[in-house]
This record gives sequence, C-alpha cells and structure tokens, in this order.
Amino acid sequence: MNPHPRRFPLKWAVGNHASLDSMPLQTIPAAVPGAVQLDWARAKNWPEHWKEDHFLKYGWMEDFFWTYSTRLEIPPVDPGENVYFVCGGVDYRFQIWLNDRMLLEQEGMFTPVRINLSHQARTGDELRIVVWPPPKQHLKAQDRHQADRTCKPAVSYGWDWHPRLIPSGIWKEAFLEIRPEFHIRHVDVRSTFDSDMVEARLEVQTELSIPGRGQLRITLLDPEGASLFTNSMGFNESALGDNMLHWSKSVAFPRLWWPNGHGDQPLYTLRVRLIGQAGEEMDVFERRIGLRRIRLVMHEGAWELPATGGTPASRRNPPITLEVNGRKIFAKGTNWVPPDIFPGTITHDTYQPLLRMAKNAHFNLLRCWGGGIVNKPEFYDLCDELGLLVWSEFPLSCMAYESEPGSEYLRVLDQESRSIIKQIRGHACHALWCGGNELFNSWSRMTDQSPALRLLNRNCYDLDPETPFLPTSPLMGMGHGDYRFRNPEGEEVFQIYVREAGKKTAYTEFGCPGLSPAEYLASFIPEQELFPPAPKTNWEWHHAYRAWEADPESWGMFGTLGHYFGKSANLEELVERSQLLQSQGYKCIYEEARRQKPVASMALNWCYNEPWPSAANNNLVNWPDKPKPAYFAVAASCRPVIASARVPKFSWKPGERFSAELWILNDSPDLVSPGRYEAELDFGTRVNSLANWDHPGTLPDVNISGPRAEVTLPDDLPERFKLRVRVVDQPGWDSEYTFIRARG
Amino acid sequence: MNPHPRRFPLKWAVGNHASLDSMPLQTIPAAVPGAVQLDWARAKNWPEHWKEDHFLKYGWMEDFFWTYSTRLEIPPVDPGENVYFVCGGVDYRFQIWLNDRMLLEQEGMFTPVRINLSHQARTGDELRIVVWPPPKQHLKAQDRHQADRTCKPAVSYGWDWHPRLIPSGIWKEAFLEIRPEFHIRHVDVRSTFDSDMVEARLEVQTELSIPGRGQLRITLLDPEGASLFTNSMGFNESALGDNMLHWSKSVAFPRLWWPNGHGDQPLYTLRVRLIGQAGEEMDVFERRIGLRRIRLVMHEGAWELPATGGTPASRRNPPITLEVNGRKIFAKGTNWVPPDIFPGTITHDTYQPLLRMAKNAHFNLLRCWGGGIVNKPEFYDLCDELGLLVWSEFPLSCMAYESEPGSEYLRVLDQESRSIIKQIRGHACHALWCGGNELFNSWSRMTDQSPALRLLNRNCYDLDPETPFLPTSPLMGMGHGDYRFRNPEGEEVFQIYVREAGKKTAYTEFGCPGLSPAEYLASFIPEQELFPPAPKTNWEWHHAYRAWEADPESWGMFGTLGHYFGKSANLEELVERSQLLQSQGYKCIYEEARRQKPVASMALNWCYNEPWPSAANNNLVNWPDKPKPAYFAVAASCRPVIASARVPKFSWKPGERFSAELWILNDSPDLVSPGRYEAELDFGTRVNSLANWDHPGTLPDVNISGPRAEVTLPDDLPERFKLRVRVVDQPGWDSEYTFIRARG
Repeated sequence: MNPHPRRFPLKWAVGNHASLDSMPLQTIPAAVPGAVQLDWARAKNWPEHWKEDHFLKYGWMEDFFWTYSTRLEIPPVDPGENVYFVCGGVDYRFQIWLNDRMLLEQEGMFTPVRINLSHQARTGDELRIVVWPPPKQHLKAQDRHQADRTCKPAVSYGWDWHPRLIPSGIWKEAFLEIRPEFHIRHVDVRSTFDSDMVEARLEVQTELSIPGRGQLRITLLDPEGASLFTNSMGFNESALGDNMLHWSKSVAFPRLWWPNGHGDQPLYTLRVRLIGQAGEEMDVFERRIGLRRIRLVMHEGAWELPATGGTPASRRNPPITLEVNGRKIFAKGTNWVPPDIFPGTITHDTYQPLLRMAKNAHFNLLRCWGGGIVNKPEFYDLCDELGLLVWSEFPLSCMAYESEPGSEYLRVLDQESRSIIKQIRGHACHALWCGGNELFNSWSRMTDQSPALRLLNRNCYDLDPETPFLPTSPLMGMGHGDYRFRNPEGEEVFQIYVREAGKKTAYTEFGCPGLSPAEYLASFIPEQELFPPAPKTNWEWHHAYRAWEADPESWGMFGTLGHYFGKSANLEELVERSQLLQSQGYKCIYEEARRQKPVASMALNWCYNEPWPSAANNNLVNWPDKPKPAYFAVAASCRPVIASARVPKFSWKPGERFSAELWILNDSPDLVSPGRYEAELDFGTRVNSLANWDHPGTLPDVNISGPRAEVTLPDDLPERFKLRVRVVDQPGWDSEYTFIRARG
Repeated sequence: MNPHPRRFPLKWAVGNHASLDSMPLQTIPAAVPGAVQLDWARAKNWPEHWKEDHFLKYGWMEDFFWTYSTRLEIPPVDPGENVYFVCGGVDYRFQIWLNDRMLLEQEGMFTPVRINLSHQARTGDELRIVVWPPPKQHLKAQDRHQADRTCKPAVSYGWDWHPRLIPSGIWKEAFLEIRPEFHIRHVDVRSTFDSDMVEARLEVQTELSIPGRGQLRITLLDPEGASLFTNSMGFNESALGDNMLHWSKSVAFPRLWWPNGHGDQPLYTLRVRLIGQAGEEMDVFERRIGLRRIRLVMHEGAWELPATGGTPASRRNPPITLEVNGRKIFAKGTNWVPPDIFPGTITHDTYQPLLRMAKNAHFNLLRCWGGGIVNKPEFYDLCDELGLLVWSEFPLSCMAYESEPGSEYLRVLDQESRSIIKQIRGHACHALWCGGNELFNSWSRMTDQSPALRLLNRNCYDLDPETPFLPTSPLMGMGHGDYRFRNPEGEEVFQIYVREAGKKTAYTEFGCPGLSPAEYLASFIPEQELFPPAPKTNWEWHHAYRAWEADPESWGMFGTLGHYFGKSANLEELVERSQLLQSQGYKCIYEEARRQKPVASMALNWCYNEPWPSAANNNLVNWPDKPKPAYFAVAASCRPVIASARVPKFSWKPGERFSAELWILNDSPDLVSPGRYEAELDFGTRVNSLANWDHPGTLPDVNISGPRAEVTLPDDLPERFKLRVRVVDQPGWDSEYTFIRARG
C-alpha cells in the first residue's frame, strides 16, 4: 500500500473575462496560492505594486471575472483509494467546473474545498475555477461600505493604512490528493480541567470520511516526544450510525501551557491512527496541543467598586481580564493586521519573523483585527510555540452588517464562521472570539440584537463553548483610540491616559504615528518627492496625508512635528523627530496602562505591522518585517519588571519644575525583593541625581509606586534631555525617557 | 374510525416517603394538576395555607419524596392507534414507572412528557410518578441560593413578597391519550414580512410523529373564520428521510396584529390536516396566529446623542424601544409574577380576570419575571387576544447560575429552555426573550461570558431567531428600582425620576408599596393583631415588616406614613393613607416616564399581582384578582392621551409657592387637535383656577409641554388638596392629583 495522503501539484493558468458567460481571451501562468493581480503583473512585467502609486493600475481588475484552469493528470490509485481535489480557499465567490459540469458553487474564502474526483475525472480533463469580481453592494461608494453584506475582509476596499486594492484568486494551497475512501477527516481536541488544574481531561472527537469499521489508536506524546500512553478504541458503523467518534482521557498533573512571560509553552502531540479491519494503518492524524484554561473575568475589586458595581456591573465594565490557568495576567500586545495586501502570498516565513519579534517585545496577546483576513494555520502554530495569545475576530469591521434571519448574507456568514471556528479551535494560543471591530459605535450601528452577532455567538458556543466571546471591541470600559501623540485640544498622551486611571479596563487600541525610516521611504517614494514631504504626492498614497478622515494631519502629523521642533532641515531630521514622538508616546501609554492594573488589564497598540510600505503609520514594524525605533521603545516598556516613571508632559521650559512619580512595574509571576531605585536627569553635558528610593519590593504581578521626585530645570536646558531610572543590581530593569525643551 | 385525539382522565393517589428506596406508608387522593402540599392539606383538613402563618406547617414536606400512583384502565384502541401517557409537566425532578419498570427519568418541570404505552401497559397496571424533594444546592441557606443550579423557579424558596413554600407535584394536565401512531406532533409558524409590511410570508413547519406517506392540507382562516385558502402538500417518507415538513405561503395585505392601544388584535387560524394514503383525515392541528413584526431598536436620536453616542453607543444604551409593525411604541405595563404559590392550580380562569384588568389599565407589555414560573399556554392565548405584549424570562433570578460547558445544570437548562421556547414562539404577543432577572448586578455576578446565558442566547437564536433576546434586566440605561415613595435620603419619587430625564431608556422595575385594603387584611390576619400593626405578628409573615433586606421599613413603610401623616387612629385611616402614597407615587412615575419619551420608551412597575395575600406590597392587584386603589390610579395615568402635570413634590406648606408644568401626554397613534387646557386647585372649600393654556395640538405619539403654572398656597391650606387638569371637550383626558399639607 502507498503512504497517505499523497499530494500532486497542479499547474494553473488564469485569464479574465467581463461576464460569466464569456471566456478569457488570453491566459497567463498563475501562481497558486497567489492572486490574479500578481499573476497579471508578473506576466506583463509591471513594476512592484507597492512602489509609488502603481497600485492604481490594478483598479480595473476588480470588475472582472477571473478563471483559473488546469489540465488534470490523474495519478494511479490503489483499490479503495480516492482522488480528491483539495483547496484551502478561493477568494471570494467562485464556481468549480470539470469540463462542462459544475461541481461546486460557493461564496466565501474561509471554507475549504474538498471534492472527490474519483469516477468523474480523467487525465486530460479540464478543471476550472471561475472567480467572481469582488462583491460590491453599493456601486457608487468606492470604500469599505461596498463589503457590508459579505464576508470578504473590508480592508482591501481602502483603509487609512491600506490602498484600495482588492485581491482575488486562489489564496491557499490547491492540489490533488490520494487517500483511502475511509480516512480521518479531522480530529478535534478539547481540554477541560478540574478546579485546581491538577487534572486535564482530553475530549477527542474524530471525524471519519465515511462510517466504517475498525479501530482508532490514540497516542499522547509528552512535549519531549515520549509516549505517555496509547489507547485503542474499536468501533463499527452499525453501533454508531455516524462518522463521529468520541474518546476521552484524563491526564494527571499536566504540564501547563503559559503565555509569553508567564512560563513555558509545552506542546503535547496527539496522534490518532485509523486501523482497518485487517489491522493495517489506514490513516494517521497528528496535532499538537497545549493544556491551559483561559477565561475572561472581571478585574479584582470590580464588583465592589462604586463606579463599576451596583447595577448592572458586568455591562458597565464587562469582563476583559484574561485569566490563564487560574492566574489573572496583564495582557500586553498589539493589533495585528494582514501582513500583506495579497493573502495568497502569506506563508510560515511571512509570519515567523513578525511573531518572533512580537515575543521578543514581551507581548503576550495579539488582536487579529476584523477588517482583515483570518490568519492561516501557520500563524496559530507559531503562536502556540511562542506563547502569543490570539484574540480572533470574524471578518466584520466598522459597518452595519445588518441582515434578517434567513438572508443570504447570514447563510454565508454561518458557513464561513463555522469554517473559521473549526480551523482555530483547539489551539493553545486561541484566547477569545470577537464578532468584529467597532460594530457598536455610532458609525457602525450594530447592537446585541443584530442577527449577525447573535449567529456568531451561537456558532462559537456550539463549536467552541469554552472560549470567551465578545460581540465587538470596544465594549464599555475599553479605551479605543485616540491615535495621536497630541490631540487637537493640545493634550498629550502624557495627560490623556493618566486621566483614565481607574476608569478603563482595557486599552484595545491606541496609536502614536511615526514616519518610516528615511532609507525605507526612499524604496517606494521617488527621490524628487522625498523632501520636503507634500500632499498629492506619493507621500499621500502611502498615508502621510489625510489618511484618517477624522484628522487632516494623519499620519504624517507634520503640524505636530512643527509644534514641538520647528522646521526640519532634511528628511533624516524630520524622520528622527517623528520617531522620537512615536517612541516616547508609546512608552508613556504602555507604562501608564500597566500602572492602572488591576482595573486595566490589557494594552494593545494600534497597530503592529502593515500590509505594504507606509510613509507614516501607527505601526511598530514596517512591511514586511522591519522594526521601527518605536518597536524597541515598546519592547523596553513591556519587559516583565521595569523601573518606570510617570511624568506629566513632554516639553519643558528652562527653570520649570520637573516632576516624576517613581514606579516599579511588575506583571511577572515573580517577587521583586527590596532594593534601591535611582532616578537621574541627563542634560548631555552633565547628569544630576533626581531621587533615590529604598523600595520595599513587591509581590508577583503587583506594581509599586514610590515618591514623586521634583527638581527645577536649569536655565541652560538643552534641546533634549533624558530621565533615567534604574534599580541597583537589576540592569535589565533600567528605563530611559527623552524630553525636549519647549520652543519659544 | 374514532375521533382523535381521545383523552381519558386518570385517578391519582399520592403519598410521601423519606428515601428513594422506600414507599409511602399511606396514600391520599391527589388532584392533578395540583401540588402535593394541597393534597395533604385537603386530606388532613388543614386550614388555608394563605391565612395567618399556616404556610409554616408545610415546611417538612420539602424534604420528602412524593409518589403519585394510578391504576391504568386502557381504553379500547383501533388498529394503527396508540395509547400515550401525556403529562404537561411535573415539578420538579421525577421518575415514571410502569409496575417495576422505569419508563423515564427527568429533571425539569417545563418539558412535557409523552410516553407510548402501547404494547407495554395493560389495564390494572400501576403507573407511578416518583417526585424528588425540591433541589437544594446549599443545605444551610434557607433561601433562594438553594436553587442556584436548577431550573426550579427560585421564588418559592422565599422572597420579599412570597413565603418559603416550595410546591411539588404534577402541575399540568396528565391523562391517557389515544391517537393514530401516525399523527401531527406539532406545528410551528413563523411569519416574516417585506420591508413595508404589505406582504407576510408564513413558514409552517409540521412535525409528524413518525415518517410516513400522505398529504398535509393547510387552511388559513381569516380573523372572522372565513377560509382564505386551502393548499395541499403531498409527501412520502422516502423523499424526506425525516418527519419535518416545511411549507410556506405569502399573504398579501395581511391584517396586522397590534398591541393594546395601537389597533386591533386580528387572529388568523391555521389549520393543518393530516390526510392518510386512503384519503382519510388522520389528524388535525389548529393554531391561531397574529401577523406582526417586533424588533428592539435604539430610540430616536440615540446614535447622535453625545451622552449615548460615540463608542460603544449600543452598549451604553442598548436597544430597548419596541418597534411593532414598523411603529415605535411606548411600552406601558407591569411586572407579572406567579398568580399563585401553587402553579398547578393556575388555569385560564386564574389568568383571565388579571389580564383583562391589565388591558383595561391600558397596559401593553407584561414582563414575566424570571424568579417565577414560565406561564401556561392559556396565558399566552389570552395575551394574544388582549393585545398584551409579553417579555418572557427564563427561570434564572438574582444569583450566579454559574456552570461550565458540559455540566449537568447546563444540560437541564438546555432541555428546559428548548421546551419553553417551543411552547411560546409563534404567539403574536411574544415580544422578547430575557435570560433572567438582575443577573449582571453585583449580587448575582453573572456576565456576558456566563455559559448559561450564552446557551440561552444560542437556543433562542436557533429556535426563534426573529425574537429579540436580552441576557438580563437591567442593562445599561435601564432604571430598575427603587421601591419607595420616599427614600432614606428624604427624596420623593417626584424628584428622583425627574432627575433621570434623558438618561434612562426604560424603567423595567419601579415600586411604591401600599397596604392592602382593611377588609382584605382581616381575611388572613387575626382580629387581635390587626391594629396597630406590629412586627413578629402575621403582618410580618405577610411582608409588612423587614420583607426586603435593603430596608427594615419594607413594605409597611410605617415610618414614611408617620412622616407625612403622623399617627393614624385606626386601620382604615392607616390603609387609606398608605394607598394614597402608593397611588400618587405610581401616577407620578408612570407619567414622568412617559414625559421622557423618546429616550425612555418603557415603564413597568414592580409589580402587578401576587401569589398569596400580602399585608403590604408594591403590587396593584391583590391575590387572586382584587384591584387596590393604586390600580385605578395607574390605569388613569396610562390612558393613551391625558392631560398631565409635573409637580416638584408631594407635601406643601401654607404660603409656599406651588408649581406645575403642564403637559399633554400622547402615546396613541392619533393626532391631538389644538384646544384649551385648564388647571385648577381644589382646596375642598373652594376651587381656584391655576392656569389656562391654549395648546397647539400634537402629532401621533408625541407629547407636548406647556407653561409652568405657579401660585402661592393659601394660609388656610387644608390637609389635602387636589390639582385637576383637563382639556376642554375631552373629558376622557382629565387627570387629578392629590397633595398634602406638610406636618409641623
């Protein structure tokens, strides 16, 4: 017998046509997975879509049908084997044809395709996938509202950091597969725990392709790969009547999976083998599992607080503190957006450097924002390994996805959400479901009564009941925005976030924009436009001007730069100043959010990454994986234990009274022993001690605040000066903050 | 062939025993439906449980098993017929035995029983129903917390208006039924509408007892009983594979069902006949349907209000305005509690007078509170006829019904909630589902993450997706309480509710207690205790002292009575004064809530009725159906159009400046034409005009306010005086308010 499954690649061509009943006039080679836009650009030798304004050339493509075709070569099969056409996903609406016969019609890119070709396809037959133009509900609006009745991610219709460029095509692997007709279709694992977490119970659900007779042999390997046990489970179709097999087993003293910063990420391996009636191995399925329990709980003291208690306390401040394995944790992280405009190009190698950097920044939670795609399995595998919890949103964002029960939209959402849940559930990193982004806000106008959200809650409860579900973000108590170092009223993040102390339970989005590095800018903006930046140039296409409708300054914030620094002499100086604001702004917010623990328990900046090169953006890492200076500033602010300071503002006058509240922030599971905390001001030409504090130490996951230190700033205050704080003999806890001399 | 179904009563005996493996030593005749407590009292000639403190004698019964038994007489059956044992509900956990064989074991009183006895039961056999002692999770607490892991309504474990008396037994009809094996098990109807409501689409789902062959003949009769159409639908088992048949049909220009005060309640009749293969009528099922569409929507202007807009607007003020057939309505009504301690005694005749009075009070919404039972079908039938919308809660109240997915509690809740939903869905009056009472408050500590509430939302969406679902009441924006004319800080309802204008979207509970009438008190309090009332007498057992833990004055409020009136000379005077406060307090709140439209759109007082005689309570109608004076006061305040006045307080000093804001409240669908509004003060010995206002009229469902009229009160102010307001030539709109002279 041959090994299973055996996979055979297919060679595709693609072409476009204006209507469903026409055919492509010409075809070009197609990369699968990929996107028709990239195939076309490759065939026509177009320059890169991400440089200058080249993306504009792709606009016409969104109004065409695109048909993929391939000539089948059916490999030889053994008796009892079938040939399947398998495809992970087609973006977005499509039909699959074998010669002149339609095999499947589907709307939705997240539901995989598996078609048994046995007895119907022969070598030389043509398999075609006809892809519809991307959905547009409202023909006039050239924006996200065109996607308000579809599960197509809205971001590619245009966003403040994403050009209008709507990908189409086969975006996941597609191939022929040979398997026995009787095989394992899927294995799901749920783990539950007794109250003190000393025993885990594994519930293993095995779905077979067809009802049959045989045996399952289930093996659990410990994180080092040693077998813990192998159990057999005989079955026959008559006793069961269906193809779902259920098996459970307790594991005493499980090695628990912890988020980054709280412990290891041991991953067990569950191996399920399907044994035929003659004792032969028919199929094998493996998956790694991390044993942990995750809940969303109210913060400590929430029920008693007068401001949040009373009636109805859990709606005034709904539960948003993550409790992992019984331990409440402070969630530090970021908002994750699609790492490329074309999801078909995203692979393990796209995710890996980004996620490693997220771990190195001491992050433990990524919010996968609902405007973008649902990530591929490789993303969740890496997050399992790295200890990065994932907040997964369904593809709804910033609009009223309104629909009556029974509507076509809800039918597609039902299908797509079930597919998404089945792909993600069971991952150790998978912390919570969320219906989508900003759906309860005045610009979206959805409510808890919206059928789409009731449907998602229903599906999550049906298919993954242990995982928390939020209908949207923000909910009450959550800080969400703003996205500026200094707001139009002249307030800085230094004042804005302090005011929220004791009121906000989570900061699910906050932003500080910064320009991209000069050499990076030069890679996609022509030299003659580089300095000074100007609107209606490639700076604007790449989001440095009028990107966010609420602020004409977005995201270059050149006015704010002028306010603090005056005119910049060259691009390098301008970029350095912008990056200083971004870095210092983010440091302030992350550390302030940490100080507000336990009322606040989450800080996620907007955003981590980007899908193409921005000239200015709130992100920490440029496309595809180049960290900006703010990345390192944030990483420093997110270390588990740090010496920190709360300073009331950014720019100071000579002779003014400078002050800093001294803190030690600890969200680690470890004690901090008593010690000496030192603060000093570095004026470049000299360093003055600001304060010494013999701190008493603190408990695991508890911050402490010390004295408020004050000093009069010298008359010869330099343009920049630094506050340095440290704990003696703890060099890993040092922090450094930069301030400037106020202009004029 | 005999007519179907044919029903045969059973004659029951009941007895108690201390353990599951013992038997009753003696049995007594049992009334079915009923309660074992009532059977025992009848057999032992006990006095009525509702008089004095006799309920205390029943305490021991809650720790016993009770076994019902009956000797079967199996009636003759035709070929193809079966004999079923049918029971609507057994309270609460039970087993059903046929001789020595257990046929069924069930926890939950809301799931009916239907057992096919054919081929297993013979005349002379014994059918036994063994009823468990009521569940008690926590043996020490003698209060509702004993019911926090069950679907047994918590109220009977003791409440501030309900004695501790926990009913047990068969609480719905139980009988033998003869039916063809092939029959209609249930017919469900859903109606949906096009956007302008000119066409209704009926979706009829017929569940057959077994898959079979035949025809359904579906007839729709208009509200006058004339046949609109009869359609036939052939089927055979092989084509369908199951026993669910789906049929749909459009009805053009449907006659819409409206809530009380907004139009008629036309009820169509849907008749589904099952026709066998030989053309014979096998079974017929009829149900009345009202065609209407109900939604919960945000109030007018909600998304734009700075206070409620922004982020996340629909959680800050979630949708609570009822929109019926596209028209937003102001919901006036009350909180409905079980009309008897023993649900087994409740019949159509229990409900009818109470519901007719509710209609006559101009109510259009009843909130069926989650601490009590889910009402019987007769309740919903009457509400369909009377135009009373129903807010139905599941049996969860004031506690943390916390449980992990997979737990036994959730299994029972799943079963019970599905049964409840199937019984209630499809009723025209059925306006919304609610998970239960006060679950998000600090004393309950449930949240949107609670598995019980996610399960209920799931089941409602699965089985009744068009009906809105609230997880609990109150949510944000909802006023819920207080329950006093005057609070401990000395504020009166006249000030408290005005302060909420523009902030509250619904008043789901508010109370003003009042004493019961003197002759009513005399029917259950011994004469020697009647006056003066005292604690630790039957006044206290009947809730006049320390009923509500938050206020030692509850519900007699004798201190408040003393504050306003001083000492009362006799019971009649005391009662009259208490009832004055209750009446004037409720008038103030209902009218103030109406003035706050459209931000506020709901006013439901706590509570309407009561399950046994109270000495003092917030209710409007004494058990079983005797209206208190406050009932009539509230009915006047709820007329669709009234002249109304906003007055700042209740007690006035001679020479003080009296003021009244003049209003016309209109929540009717009709215009109010311009006219003359007159206000006068009646001092008993003379009547002084206060103001005349030539009002401009107003639109349907729009209030108008006029001038604020002021006058200096005379030095000879009598102990009571009245404000009368009227619109000339509209005698049905007059209002009258009573005020008092302040003491001392």
